[in-house]
Amino acid sequence: MSQPIRKIGLLTSGGDAPGMNAVIRAVVMTAAVQGIEVIGFSHGFNGIFSNEFQQLHRAQVLHIIQQGGTILKSARCKQLEQPNGPAQAAELLHKNGIEALIVIGGDGSFRGCQAIAPFYQGQIVGIPGTIDNDVDGTDFTIGFATALDTALDAIDKIRDTADAFERIFLIEVMGRHTGYLALAAGIASGAEQIICPEYGDVDVVDLQRDIQQLQQQFGRSSYIIVIAETMYPAGATALAAELTKATSIECRACVLGHLQRGGSPVGSDRILATKLGAYAVEQLLLGNAHLMMAGEQGGQAVLFPLSLTGDKKKQTDRYLLDWQERMLQDSSPRKV
Amino acid sequence: MSQPIRKIGLLTSGGDAPGMNAVIRAVVMTAAVQGIEVIGFSHGFNGIFSNEFQQLHRAQVLHIIQQGGTILKSARCKQLEQPNGPAQAAELLHKNGIEALIVIGGDGSFRGCQAIAPFYQGQIVGIPGTIDNDVDGTDFTIGFATALDTALDAIDKIRDTADAFERIFLIEVMGRHTGYLALAAGIASGAEQIICPEYGDVDVVDLQRDIQQLQQQFGRSSYIIVIAETMYPAGATALAAELTKATSIECRACVLGHLQRGGSPVGSDRILATKLGAYAVEQLLLGNAHLMMAGEQGGQAVLFPLSLTGDKKKQTDRYLLDWQERMLQDSSPRKV
Amino acid sequence: MSQPIRKIGLLTSGGDAPGMNAVIRAVVMTAAVQGIEVIGFSHGFNGIFSNEFQQLHRAQVLHIIQQGGTILKSARCKQLEQPNGPAQAAELLHKNGIEALIVIGGDGSFRGCQAIAPFYQGQIVGIPGTIDNDVDGTDFTIGFATALDTALDAIDKIRDTADAFERIFLIEVMGRHTGYLALAAGIASGAEQIICPEYGDVDVVDLQRDIQQLQQQFGRSSYIIVIAETMYPAGATALAAELTKATSIECRACVLGHLQRGGSPVGSDRILATKLGAYAVEQLLLGNAHLMMAGEQGGQAVLFPLSLTGDKKKQTDRYLLDWQERMLQDSSPRKV
Amino acid sequence: MSQPIRKIGLLTSGGDAPGMNAVIRAVVMTAAVQGIEVIGFSHGFNGIFSNEFQQLHRAQVLHIIQQGGTILKSARCKQLEQPNGPAQAAELLHKNGIEALIVIGGDGSFRGCQAIAPFYQGQIVGIPGTIDNDVDGTDFTIGFATALDTALDAIDKIRDTADAFERIFLIEVMGRHTGYLALAAGIASGAEQIICPEYGDVDVVDLQRDIQQLQQQFGRSSYIIVIAETMYPAGATALAAELTKATSIECRACVLGHLQRGGSPVGSDRILATKLGAYAVEQLLLGNAHLMMAGEQGGQAVLFPLSLTGDKKKQTDRYLLDWQERMLQDSSPRKV
Repeated sequence: MSQPIRKIGLLTSGGDAPGMNAVIRAVVMTAAVQGIEVIGFSHGFNGIFSNEFQQLHRAQVLHIIQQGGTILKSARCKQLEQPNGPAQAAELLHKNGIEALIVIGGDGSFRGCQAIAPFYQGQIVGIPGTIDNDVDGTDFTIGFATALDTALDAIDKIRDTADAFERIFLIEVMGRHTGYLALAAGIASGAEQIICPEYGDVDVVDLQRDIQQLQQQFGRSSYIIVIAETMYPAGATALAAELTKATSIECRACVLGHLQRGGSPVGSDRILATKLGAYAVEQLLLGNAHLMMAGEQGGQAVLFPLSLTGDKKKQTDRYLLDWQERMLQDSSPRKV
Repeated sequence: MSQPIRKIGLLTSGGDAPGMNAVIRAVVMTAAVQGIEVIGFSHGFNGIFSNEFQQLHRAQVLHIIQQGGTILKSARCKQLEQPNGPAQAAELLHKNGIEALIVIGGDGSFRGCQAIAPFYQGQIVGIPGTIDNDVDGTDFTIGFATALDTALDAIDKIRDTADAFERIFLIEVMGRHTGYLALAAGIASGAEQIICPEYGDVDVVDLQRDIQQLQQQFGRSSYIIVIAETMYPAGATALAAELTKATSIECRACVLGHLQRGGSPVGSDRILATKLGAYAVEQLLLGNAHLMMAGEQGGQAVLFPLSLTGDKKKQTDRYLLDWQERMLQDSSPRKV
Repeated sequence: MSQPIRKIGLLTSGGDAPGMNAVIRAVVMTAAVQGIEVIGFSHGFNGIFSNEFQQLHRAQVLHIIQQGGTILKSARCKQLEQPNGPAQAAELLHKNGIEALIVIGGDGSFRGCQAIAPFYQGQIVGIPGTIDNDVDGTDFTIGFATALDTALDAIDKIRDTADAFERIFLIEVMGRHTGYLALAAGIASGAEQIICPEYGDVDVVDLQRDIQQLQQQFGRSSYIIVIAETMYPAGATALAAELTKATSIECRACVLGHLQRGGSPVGSDRILATKLGAYAVEQLLLGNAHLMMAGEQGGQAVLFPLSLTGDKKKQTDRYLLDWQERMLQDSSPRKV
Repeated sequence: MSQPIRKIGLLTSGGDAPGMNAVIRAVVMTAAVQGIEVIGFSHGFNGIFSNEFQQLHRAQVLHIIQQGGTILKSARCKQLEQPNGPAQAAELLHKNGIEALIVIGGDGSFRGCQAIAPFYQGQIVGIPGTIDNDVDGTDFTIGFATALDTALDAIDKIRDTADAFERIFLIEVMGRHTGYLALAAGIASGAEQIICPEYGDVDVVDLQRDIQQLQQQFGRSSYIIVIAETMYPAGATALAAELTKATSIECRACVLGHLQRGGSPVGSDRILATKLGAYAVEQLLLGNAHLMMAGEQGGQAVLFPLSLTGDKKKQTDRYLLDWQERMLQDSSPRKV
């Protein structure tokens, strides 16, 4: 690493997230000023194996900051999971003169980085791009803020119908292992109830009691429940049917699904993406970035070991979790 | 009807649709200029039976044109479906001095109007508010244009992910009996395929062939299928699983559901709502409106018999149906 | 014209409008099925003179239906306005084997078509793409519906501040010669006042009286005035200052300007664009389209002579103009 | 302060900001659980003087989290600026049994709090609601994130036209004394140039040189300049005219103005508002909040002395300021 880097590889991997293109732009533009080539591999790690890559020029990326998706495409890569996959990937990177590798993705993508590292001479740096916000070492992942606003846009619309019919709506948001998105979407939509791992399992009897208490306090009203995607194994639609039966109020489910992944990134995601993309390149040039993730903590770009990004020590906001639980409590004897 | 009307009843019924509040506003403001009171019943026809109503003042409705949902609430009404329900409703209307009734809703709501009419002395006029656009006698129903844009917003976002992964996505839109929304959303999103009643049943083998043909022509690419809600009885998710198996390309389903009903109405819905709300009042005052629907044809407000609104003679756009079928045809021997 | 057309020229000219890319897509895809090449000229008519053009393939346009702007770029063309410009353009079209020409634009662009026609052997067809909706022969121009919703989005936001401060806001929308956009934006935003050519000149004394009457009726309230861009020669900011002085209520101006031209087209613009693009190609193939515009009337695609598109016989909606004038009238002795 | 608080006063003051209603909701709901009354004063501090206030109930605020503007209205208050205004305000608060006061606003509103404090027995706490993000002691003010996304939405649209015509656009955003919004909007829109106080005065010759350099590097292209509102005293339109003359490329100005203040708050603003509203009430109950602002630093709610909120020690992001300056630098001899 004593001699200057001349050629960087770049790829997007795992589930796509709004802001990935903004990272690509920042990487290419920062590198260009230093006279460094950026080679973009297509379809995640697959592009390394299939030799699908292209040099990325500034003119190509100058105006992609607002585009959803990823111009480099993404995909799972089965070849990397083969026993000799990582060694082979490293060899191909060397063969193509790639002196450092930047990978934009989440947890799984970062494990891929770590698998390749023992066989690879250059630095490998990760940039957290996932709507789940479940990566340790960064306050926010790129894409989370946009996915939150997409979910809110949908929930605000559903509130109109829920209000018109004074119905219960169950809205399932993404987030397999953590409740970041469910908590944020629930708080920000003013949901009456949030179901996420941090609150424990779903209990239909508890739900029924909460709904009835609210109706005693406020009269008939809409009731919105935001639920994280794996909290009710039979699915949101089945839970909606159970709630309809239990409460005798019509309850409908709405699964937001993949629409949360797309769309033009919001401002904070574009800024975070720009910062981390630029910072990753700068840190590579300083030789600091090997097996590190470029994240942001307290507004400052930081490096954080890739090996620790999956530790799941990062916590959803305890303050908001508590507040939500209390906010509709009865305050008898005073009336609302 | 020889003496002037002094008090009009107004209610929203059936599935809610963006623009219902804009109609309420136009009715109240047009009536106010003529010195006529407007009484708003709550929860659709239920408000008549339960005596839930209020006088609507201009100051209340002046700034609701942009609000989704309906300030009058909506609901199905079981009492109206009882044998003596319609007579009872008429009696209650008379008792409350309601000299004419305006009902904003769809097909089912208009049948309610017709049921009450034999027992009621005043005029009853309908205004088409439904996202389905399946009401005869009007080019567009209030709410359709907004629901289309809501669906497009979602499909555009999903296209980002579909492109990033070169995947198939099945997107289910509302519209039980007709394909207006599916056709419009499919054309306007640039969907590769549309499945709606007008094209006949789903054939997985045909779909598979079309997908493979497209890939031969264009290489790997995203593939979006818009499907109307009842076209595959087992549901969009089941069809997605079948397609994944048949094509070996990952196919995901996304059911847009109730988010299509809410939201701030788009401009064309607000204008249509304003026009039809004002026109309904004017025609009531002229004594022309009994058992008529206020609709729009060729840009002009018109009256159309409520009894014919459910005839289902209105056609989805044949020109667009044909174009969509041809647009991806192979043009060999010339290449794309 | 007896032998089949093999190569069509296509360009976008004049002010850009949302939906121009959707037209380009429809033209290319419709032509491709017939085995016809489409040559896209860059920068409007300039591309003809400067030989800037490219063959447009389906793969390039398949997914551009949702993009704002125009991939072919637009510009005024000074060369076409030179005495021998039209003849020269025709000669260059012939030289490049362009057997028919499709021009997407407004009034000025259509005059360009007519100037070239005497020197050109092939058919020239126009497609109305302009946010102004001021083209005779079509109910709507491509881009108008989107510009309306962009304006509404802004006005709805300004209403929040106007309400919070009970202030007057003057909002200037585009539309130099006609009030289509001002009337539509004013009606659909629930503006208290609309100033557009159809209502005659601005009279500050009248405005002041209307504002004070409203305040007597409704108490202090926000007051939104939508004004078409050339209605007050000194500009909206100057008029705001005058109104502040006249009413002693703070009045602010907001000039929406060019943000009305951009953005992803709404559904109705995408559908109209698709229809007219496809129809223009079909009519060219039938030999019907020479010096015609492809427009839409009453939901049907139609041909209309280019020479008549600027006749200005098309009227803004008289019904809505009248309703707006009356809607806030006092209805004494009854209170609001 | 030894006895429990039973009645809190609440008002919104200064320029409105998206998220003010979300704060009101959180204050009322948090207080209700503790059995505390919240009295909302109308029109900022004016409501104290004019006795315009109401008790706020949970049912009123339950579903206002997504609403722009402020249900309590806002306004400047001249009476508070009178010599005896603050003492009088304190007396009226006492008279109405207001035992603590929460003020949502910016710098100027916080000075009002400090003016009243010497005459008032209870705690006064501020909550930062302003789109300018220029308040010391909190990482972000409520409303900033929404105003950023509103500006981006406009700039993205203008980029379409700028691209279509390869034109220069000057876009003026709010922010009188600081460049937070201009820097954020410029970075996040991918603007080619940002003009804000942190970069020093506008120099037309420098601008001209930068524009020409970019065109040498990238060919003709759109060029977007984001400018903070007071950076060119003659106004953005005058600067646009100067640039047109200097570069011979058409340059247009667009002043975003008040549309940046309105609209439904984005998720991060709703969450921040909820957190700070709840925290302010909790800290009041603990007796900690006197003359403090409830802010957020590093994700944690904190108290910060109101007297220091206007110190202007808070810095715009130095890292992004530097990156923006370098990002388009020429990297000769390597080509883009």
